[in-house]
Amino acid sequence: VTGAEAFIAVDWGTSNRRAWRMDAGGAVEDSFADGCGILDTPADAFGAEIAFLRETLGDLPMLLGGMVGSNRGWREAPYVPCPASTADLAKGILWIDRRTGIVPGVSQDHGDAPDVMRGEETQIAGALASGLVPQDALLCLPGTHAKWVRLEEGRIAGFTTWMTGELFALLGDHSILAPQLAGEARPGPGFAAGVTASGEGDALGHLFRIRAASALGAPMADAPGYASGLLIGAEVRAGMAQMQGEAPWLIGRHDLCALYAAAIGRVRGEDTDTTRLIEGDAAFRAGIAALIGELP
Amino acid sequence: VTGAEAFIAVDWGTSNRRAWRMDAGGAVEDSFADGCGILDTPADAFGAEIAFLRETLGDLPMLLGGMVGSNRGWREAPYVPCPASTADLAKGILWIDRRTGIVPGVSQDHGDAPDVMRGEETQIAGALASGLVPQDALLCLPGTHAKWVRLEEGRIAGFTTWMTGELFALLGDHSILAPQLAGEARPGPGFAAGVTASGEGDALGHLFRIRAASALGAPMADAPGYASGLLIGAEVRAGMAQMQGEAPWLIGRHDLCALYAAAIGRVRGEDTDTTRLIEGDAAFRAGIAALIGELP
Repeated sequence: VTGAEAFIAVDWGTSNRRAWRMDAGGAVEDSFADGCGILDTPADAFGAEIAFLRETLGDLPMLLGGMVGSNRGWREAPYVPCPASTADLAKGILWIDRRTGIVPGVSQDHGDAPDVMRGEETQIAGALASGLVPQDALLCLPGTHAKWVRLEEGRIAGFTTWMTGELFALLGDHSILAPQLAGEARPGPGFAAGVTASGEGDALGHLFRIRAASALGAPMADAPGYASGLLIGAEVRAGMAQMQGEAPWLIGRHDLCALYAAAIGRVRGEDTDTTRLIEGDAAFRAGIAALIGELP
Repeated sequence: VTGAEAFIAVDWGTSNRRAWRMDAGGAVEDSFADGCGILDTPADAFGAEIAFLRETLGDLPMLLGGMVGSNRGWREAPYVPCPASTADLAKGILWIDRRTGIVPGVSQDHGDAPDVMRGEETQIAGALASGLVPQDALLCLPGTHAKWVRLEEGRIAGFTTWMTGELFALLGDHSILAPQLAGEARPGPGFAAGVTASGEGDALGHLFRIRAASALGAPMADAPGYASGLLIGAEVRAGMAQMQGEAPWLIGRHDLCALYAAAIGRVRGEDTDTTRLIEGDAAFRAGIAALIGELP
């Protein structure tokens, strides 16, 4: 694998996969996506799935990132401990064969704050390589398990995972609030009210208001927004407080980044800043290209 | 119904019911409990269930409290708005017939902090009538939906519900942490570490450490304790901060109250105070007796 040829970039997560054929310059030539996540793929089926992706997108070198490299995926690509540079990640690629590799995750091994990521490191490498974030920066990557990442001299220096997305889904699927939480969270007055209420310092002590308002016959107009605002508000307050109030760069899905940007603006008392939003899939592809560029 | 005769007290919740035959002096003569909660009881079956309880415990006047008075229970006993005294609760009893009544819940109707309770108001009335708590006090009633209650001049002046217990159950039953959270939370070093970590101001940003420690091959020795300590720690810090750090009286199940007492002691930098623990069932029975004492 060298940077002088076309390649396939695959983001293979728990519940879906996306793949792109890229030319040597990093432009997308073709793409494929489906709901076949690693949990839907038997351990002995990965080889055939890789062959399928090459039949679909071209017989080309391939780098895969995300949960495909976890102990529940195809083969475990051991974590690279932070501080981790793009070059460190490239050195840590697990080569299945001469032209098929799995990008490693990154770990934080401090005894009292252990943490792990898989997939986000590639997006971060892409944002750095594209010049979209500075070498020293605070990043936030919203998602089921959101990551807050400190970059120092272009390396992942440390990070914290927030289970905000998973918690919101749990509340909507299984809690006493489920009837009120049907529907998506969107920026708006309900979301803003939740972000404001999270500033009272006890977001978890406000969620039951959603149920109480219904029991009292005055249901909230936008309960999903309020709940999301409480949880994301608590997250962005704590994430920024650890960095003296610095606003993070946001990397991820557009709708989630828009919610986070709205929360950050509200906590900082500013208008929503749309200049720090970086599209997650584009960052991932740029990260795969950057890793290939680091290969000897 | 008068205070001069024996009676039956029934605490009928969502997933179980407890009933006691009490003599006119408030002493327990007999009891019954099973897993037949209101959600297991068809709407047209409550009459027969009441007859069954009287066959089992005696043909006596009966007062029922808890979710049996909700819109998912037998008949809805409208909430009494706070501030609410024991006399206010007695006036709000919904009489099904001459000698069968349902105790109302209490509501907080502030537009921006709506809240409701059902069952706890009876325990509070009992703790007051027994002289176990002062007329002006901060109370905490741990449970699936924990209540923090301000008493002023013997009345429920205001309160906040925390979904801590339900959230802990959701994480153990449905989250990515489920494999690590099998087992009960108990006071100990893991719980203490969670309470301490909750002081960093972002309890929800620490839960993923449980998963990360496992992924890194060094699983926590007591993950249920750590998770419980994080959540209860965040709750007691916020609950006490609203009252200038005052320690609450605890009313509820012994095991839960012990966890809360351990968290409160740790947050206050003191030994665990076991002098403020009030057994929940005894408080409930005393509350039913106090309500009967208020009847004309």
